[in-house]
Amino acid sequence: MLQPFDDNYFMKKAFQQAEMAYEKAEIPVGAIITHGNQIIAQAHNLTEQLTDVTAHAEMQAITAAANYIGGKYLHDCTLYVTLEPCQMCAGALYWSQISKIVFAAEDAKRGYRSMQAKLHPKTKVEFGIMEEEAAQLIKDFFLEKRKF
Amino acid sequence: MLQPFDDNYFMKKAFQQAEMAYEKAEIPVGAIITHGNQIIAQAHNLTEQLTDVTAHAEMQAITAAANYIGGKYLHDCTLYVTLEPCQMCAGALYWSQISKIVFAAEDAKRGYRSMQAKLHPKTKVEFGIMEEEAAQLIKDFFLEKRKF
Repeated sequence: MLQPFDDNYFMKKAFQQAEMAYEKAEIPVGAIITHGNQIIAQAHNLTEQLTDVTAHAEMQAITAAANYIGGKYLHDCTLYVTLEPCQMCAGALYWSQISKIVFAAEDAKRGYRSMQAKLHPKTKVEFGIMEEEAAQLIKDFFLEKRKF
Repeated sequence: MLQPFDDNYFMKKAFQQAEMAYEKAEIPVGAIITHGNQIIAQAHNLTEQLTDVTAHAEMQAITAAANYIGGKYLHDCTLYVTLEPCQMCAGALYWSQISKIVFAAEDAKRGYRSMQAKLHPKTKVEFGIMEEEAAQLIKDFFLEKRKF
């Protein structure tokens, strides 16, 4: 049976955002936030273009989703992001009390888990969907960057 | 001898920002960022007005300072903030590689130290300047809030 609005579907949408970051010479990370089966925010990393370390995909998506909802808290919302969030984004997600986070590739060095950052106790986490594709996109980015 | 541009001077400026937050019914936290003896960014908490958990004083100040400098990194810059940064703000400060952080009041519950968030190894930290005034302002805010 077809399940068009499943985790794979939404992670593909986040991956498309990551590809948009890649095209702009940004570290390719993309994020979307859903509420029910509706995408209420989508964003990609813009730290270089905006010369702003806070412009991670997740941060922009949190701001956009809260704006859409008209409230600070992202209850009943899910974040799909192509890379494990850093401690800044984990901190923002903590304050948002988001219901669920799904990330693709792990970030062993700067991910929130190795940095020991805390998520909200209400937040469920899943990972590994499209892990290889998301990790490969980032590897390709840095390989290409080294050529110049 | 007069030392007009010392830590006390700049923390008073951050405190004035916190008072502006108080007047807007925001949790009263203020921040400024200096480069040399120049204030290059000032901001106060706007999470309620913007319905955005990411709108902490520090986050806005980081964005504004990077915009002023024209680069992502806040080398040779100091953040003065009236409350110990949370893990989100610590994470943003980590990415910014800011040279120094001075905070007034400690946040035993949600401060970056108790949350085990990491600052950049290059970042020096001082705290305790105007600690009582900054803590009292926050206490006053919550006491007043409970009345309504």
